[in-house]
Amino acid sequence: MTDRFAPRPEDKFSFGLWTVGWQGTDVFGPASRDLLDPVEATYKLAELGAAAVTFHDDDLLPDDATRDATLDRFKKALADTGLAVEMVTTNTFSDPVFKEGAITANNREVRRYALAKVLRNIDLAAELGAKTFVMWGGREGAEHGASKNVPAAMDRFRDALNIACGYVKERGYDMRFALEPKPNEPRGDILLPTIGHAIALISELEHPEMVGLNPEVGHEEMAGLNFAHGISQALWHDKLFHIDLNGQHGPRFDQDLRFGAGNLRGAFWTVDAMLGAGTSKRYDGYVHFDYKPPRAEAMDGVWESARACMRNYLILREKVQAFRADPEVQSALEAAGVPELEQPTVAPGESLDDVRNATYDLDALRARSVAMEALDQLAMEHLLGVR
Amino acid sequence: MTDRFAPRPEDKFSFGLWTVGWQGTDVFGPASRDLLDPVEATYKLAELGAAAVTFHDDDLLPDDATRDATLDRFKKALADTGLAVEMVTTNTFSDPVFKEGAITANNREVRRYALAKVLRNIDLAAELGAKTFVMWGGREGAEHGASKNVPAAMDRFRDALNIACGYVKERGYDMRFALEPKPNEPRGDILLPTIGHAIALISELEHPEMVGLNPEVGHEEMAGLNFAHGISQALWHDKLFHIDLNGQHGPRFDQDLRFGAGNLRGAFWTVDAMLGAGTSKRYDGYVHFDYKPPRAEAMDGVWESARACMRNYLILREKVQAFRADPEVQSALEAAGVPELEQPTVAPGESLDDVRNATYDLDALRARSVAMEALDQLAMEHLLGVR
Amino acid sequence: MTDRFAPRPEDKFSFGLWTVGWQGTDVFGPASRDLLDPVEATYKLAELGAAAVTFHDDDLLPDDATRDATLDRFKKALADTGLAVEMVTTNTFSDPVFKEGAITANNREVRRYALAKVLRNIDLAAELGAKTFVMWGGREGAEHGASKNVPAAMDRFRDALNIACGYVKERGYDMRFALEPKPNEPRGDILLPTIGHAIALISELEHPEMVGLNPEVGHEEMAGLNFAHGISQALWHDKLFHIDLNGQHGPRFDQDLRFGAGNLRGAFWTVDAMLGAGTSKRYDGYVHFDYKPPRAEAMDGVWESARACMRNYLILREKVQAFRADPEVQSALEAAGVPELEQPTVAPGESLDDVRNATYDLDALRARSVAMEALDQLAMEHLLGVR
Amino acid sequence: MTDRFAPRPEDKFSFGLWTVGWQGTDVFGPASRDLLDPVEATYKLAELGAAAVTFHDDDLLPDDATRDATLDRFKKALADTGLAVEMVTTNTFSDPVFKEGAITANNREVRRYALAKVLRNIDLAAELGAKTFVMWGGREGAEHGASKNVPAAMDRFRDALNIACGYVKERGYDMRFALEPKPNEPRGDILLPTIGHAIALISELEHPEMVGLNPEVGHEEMAGLNFAHGISQALWHDKLFHIDLNGQHGPRFDQDLRFGAGNLRGAFWTVDAMLGAGTSKRYDGYVHFDYKPPRAEAMDGVWESARACMRNYLILREKVQAFRADPEVQSALEAAGVPELEQPTVAPGESLDDVRNATYDLDALRARSVAMEALDQLAMEHLLGVR
Repeated sequence: MTDRFAPRPEDKFSFGLWTVGWQGTDVFGPASRDLLDPVEATYKLAELGAAAVTFHDDDLLPDDATRDATLDRFKKALADTGLAVEMVTTNTFSDPVFKEGAITANNREVRRYALAKVLRNIDLAAELGAKTFVMWGGREGAEHGASKNVPAAMDRFRDALNIACGYVKERGYDMRFALEPKPNEPRGDILLPTIGHAIALISELEHPEMVGLNPEVGHEEMAGLNFAHGISQALWHDKLFHIDLNGQHGPRFDQDLRFGAGNLRGAFWTVDAMLGAGTSKRYDGYVHFDYKPPRAEAMDGVWESARACMRNYLILREKVQAFRADPEVQSALEAAGVPELEQPTVAPGESLDDVRNATYDLDALRARSVAMEALDQLAMEHLLGVR
Repeated sequence: MTDRFAPRPEDKFSFGLWTVGWQGTDVFGPASRDLLDPVEATYKLAELGAAAVTFHDDDLLPDDATRDATLDRFKKALADTGLAVEMVTTNTFSDPVFKEGAITANNREVRRYALAKVLRNIDLAAELGAKTFVMWGGREGAEHGASKNVPAAMDRFRDALNIACGYVKERGYDMRFALEPKPNEPRGDILLPTIGHAIALISELEHPEMVGLNPEVGHEEMAGLNFAHGISQALWHDKLFHIDLNGQHGPRFDQDLRFGAGNLRGAFWTVDAMLGAGTSKRYDGYVHFDYKPPRAEAMDGVWESARACMRNYLILREKVQAFRADPEVQSALEAAGVPELEQPTVAPGESLDDVRNATYDLDALRARSVAMEALDQLAMEHLLGVR
Repeated sequence: MTDRFAPRPEDKFSFGLWTVGWQGTDVFGPASRDLLDPVEATYKLAELGAAAVTFHDDDLLPDDATRDATLDRFKKALADTGLAVEMVTTNTFSDPVFKEGAITANNREVRRYALAKVLRNIDLAAELGAKTFVMWGGREGAEHGASKNVPAAMDRFRDALNIACGYVKERGYDMRFALEPKPNEPRGDILLPTIGHAIALISELEHPEMVGLNPEVGHEEMAGLNFAHGISQALWHDKLFHIDLNGQHGPRFDQDLRFGAGNLRGAFWTVDAMLGAGTSKRYDGYVHFDYKPPRAEAMDGVWESARACMRNYLILREKVQAFRADPEVQSALEAAGVPELEQPTVAPGESLDDVRNATYDLDALRARSVAMEALDQLAMEHLLGVR
Repeated sequence: MTDRFAPRPEDKFSFGLWTVGWQGTDVFGPASRDLLDPVEATYKLAELGAAAVTFHDDDLLPDDATRDATLDRFKKALADTGLAVEMVTTNTFSDPVFKEGAITANNREVRRYALAKVLRNIDLAAELGAKTFVMWGGREGAEHGASKNVPAAMDRFRDALNIACGYVKERGYDMRFALEPKPNEPRGDILLPTIGHAIALISELEHPEMVGLNPEVGHEEMAGLNFAHGISQALWHDKLFHIDLNGQHGPRFDQDLRFGAGNLRGAFWTVDAMLGAGTSKRYDGYVHFDYKPPRAEAMDGVWESARACMRNYLILREKVQAFRADPEVQSALEAAGVPELEQPTVAPGESLDDVRNATYDLDALRARSVAMEALDQLAMEHLLGVR
């Protein structure tokens, strides 16, 4: 009997090498796990069912001395396993050189170094066939009101994106950029704190079509925001270029739990939004996990958590599909008036004066049933597997 | 001796009639204060030093029977006091007709009624000379994942704004729209939850130049976001059309404290951002308070809190100006490299290859002093009045 | 075929009359539903499967004029349905008389009136056979640092509890008190903000054995706290006298969602903790729901949400029991070392010096597997119904 | 001219060696500062005006090889500077051995090692004259519902405290214990998450008089709790044995900002509560800072931040004293009814029946002025230095 929750290549699961490779260092203690060779991790992720890997430059190639040898071994692993490198991103936050920012550091030399690091990494990404290049500005921000001129920082952000887009076009790479918002941690306040702020910035770029988003479940939930709503708005703007799935328990430190842990109902609606269920928009990219196996776990727990990320996604996908296919759910959606929202408020050609001056039966509208609890309870029971 | 913190007309202070008029009804109890006649409130706010008032249609004109008489009395009050009506907004959230949304209600008839209410209120706003028309979608949102098709709701939001802009243009009104974001309460999750999400929507409109934002301190802080950063980004997009000042203690219920209460240091940086201190952008509109006198207060406390909103703004403005004028602060800003962020990362005409391939003295950059604590402590001491 | 999730009397489900009776009034709008007669509500709750009801004095008996007639009708309903009144609580927060507190109001006359209201309500509770008397101090708190002398307020809280206990003893009632903590809303900060603070207070009382807790899911989660941990600590102190089940999405306004909605995994662990699964402590009282049907719903949604509270509890209870009975879970608990925590760290009679001076194999302990992700994934799959 | 904000020995300022010694390692990057010799740090803190230092065992004495030499140098530094070691605490959270807990680890051998480490450190603390021994259980908690049996963990916590108290008594040390609550980070949920939970535990100990609290500003504010209220309740229980001052911006990662940064108004009320202003309770211990200089700062910023912690305390203390001494404040307190709360609700000997059956003038009580905004604005203006 086959396991219907076993990952297959067409599920397009992807993992950052830094996820299973996280050694457990935090503010309160050093590494609890040995260094994991990124090439070994690649083989193991393939074995577990992933279709692709992603990395920060420094995850794979921490120094020049071992660069070529590692790259050779890594390419062999890709060839051996059939895994793709679907996305690459640049570490512009670990090295203390970036301690007060990278792309928006006050220090111009740091900004130039950050840009150089990004450009070199774009070349590597292209070499490995990555179509998505993520930019997370983990240290772009401030703890102190006067220490960062925000409009100037926005100028530098915009310039850097324009430069990077120009570079990709000039080199003829087939690559798009995806910005990853986060509200705080490790900086007190990070620039582009939410999905919305990042889309807003994109509207000011020279090549807005080349830049989209890589939203992360936990980052939006750290601001108490509804992730499914956030990616739905991003889809509406055609800006959901990539995604980072994980788990979080609301406003607190960045937990990076495995997908499904934390806000489980939110995970159900996230998968629903990704599948475009109920709307005209859907996400077609890789299903990418950006999480951290808890520091307490040894390597058995690392691989178990990676396995569970994919498994939980597949379980939830099955449930979402069953929910959307359930005739009783269709009726409940009708009862809640959900399809009616697709009708324009004013018909094409209709007179606005007619709308303005019409008489409305307010008492009936006030008393109407909305039947949303009933609809939500159907979703609950699909999720719990009792329907 | 004159009080240097006494409000003057050129300070452009403005109050919503619903602020001092709030009767104290909340989820856990009924009104604790009698109804305040909005016309009396207008006289009293003028006496306290306000330059303008604002209102929701229903604040001033709750029913048709008294509409004409109240409007006459109100116009007389404006004439008597010299107060302007600088902004008007529509109540599309109190009436149970809007219980599951207004502009984005699933129910089309409700949407049409909401639009009608907005259009009629635009006419009133124009009649009274308001140049800003705020839209806060307090009930536009959901508690339940499937109950709201977010892309469809975004379509309806966009359509309604396009219709409203067209209406204003057609009527020849001199009026701009300002969207007010809020993450949650009274709905579980509200659409356009932050400054960023609202700017993003504007980029999809037919007349984006006619639509900006009316951010509220507490609303962004309910999501744990830095309000000064938020309005700085809005200024950068030329989208800070209006502002709602108040106070909040981070993620929890919407407290609507008087300005200065809650996050006082945030209030200092808010005023700093409004004045454009340290940047090339500044806010020139009315200084508008949207707060609620605590339910426990009788009318003496209502007026005291209104007085204190203005007073705290003037105190903070004086401190911000002194901070920015202090030569030691100038030195500290230099030491922190703040002005350096205004220099482009890549000079015009400079070769990108040079940046990409240059050698950087990373050890020196890692070890550099950023001196931001020293700068921040100077701000602290200006705020505390000990410099 | 019987529905295994249909409530039965022995499930001991209980509802506050104020839950289904909530009319939808909030800070941003008036009632959206008509007044529900509490006696009708009692019949309807019985029909849905509840075993008991609870109420605030004012829910049932809002005025003296109708008191006797309502009480007669209510007693008849109890007799007709077999429902118990298992708990009674006093409304010391709605009437503006309590606007700055009740038991801890600065105003002594208010405190005396609050105490009188409590004492009269204790008599009513006894008359109706309630064994638990809840005290929620919704307005006991402050928005302003100097406005409340906290040690003096603690004195007044202690005195009032001592007085109430003395009154119950003197009258010979079979009744215990249960304090309900909440961190904020409607006050900026409420006294006794968490389970811990309330247990601490109890340790200072004359009759600590008569006073325990009535924790509410959403109240602890508004502070970002783990509710299952909280009630487990309360059980450890033998202080879980009663419980309020509902749902919440972390730090924000008090959502009072139906049980299961919000933090679903938290609800699973809550039921697990109530059942004492895995520990030596369990909760034996009524399963009481304190939630609010969303304001958008008409009466069909009110009853649907009440039904769903019980149903979700029964679904989760079945899953928790299956989880605890699963042999693979037993193995996983062993692998995670969970039972080992029941062994004392130092054996009885063992020399402390031996512990102090022993040699520990730290490298082995550092490298050990904890296997907690595997255990948690088993719980996830029980919850999702895929095992 | 003397600086009235220059620290003096009688101010009793104390710093953890780990504060200025923090090298900047976080989840997203390695150390940004060189190792600071703890003995050098001691001299420097003395020079800045501190009266005492505190440390974790591992801060000062990371290994056995250098232990004796370092201890000699440290004792010489204490003698040279006159600094006291007022508190010592044990690091039971950094070493991966403690990855799933220490005192409450599932693994019994780990618990025994943790206990051994604590006992040896008690001896060191006694040797150095420390009167307070802090216990922060940073890794005592869980990310997974079933992985920790909370009642069993409470048993182990209780046993460990009983053992430690017995050890201190047996050895004849003059030492008290202080528990440090924290809601989360680095664990998903930490046991004893708030001040209240820790006081509750103490009530179950064999020697409750030997155990109190060491609350930290940021830890309570991470749960959205009012720190001044928290320590006021702790003072009421006579449990405020020690304090950790720092700054935080509400629910998010543990920021450990310098004192005054973050919630400045909260810092004012914290100092007010410590001074017992307005109440009968005050804190007489060391004024201890537990903060982290931002990772971006070089050593100049480290020392500036330490200096500023003390300076901000002294500035706030002066303001609090002026506030409490201001006759207008006295009048405002009277107007707000604050002193009235010190009067018992029921007079000694008074009949409860009289209270129960009295007639209350509810309309007058509803309409009364509470004048708390006016009082709060006076505090605001003292804080801002404009009175």
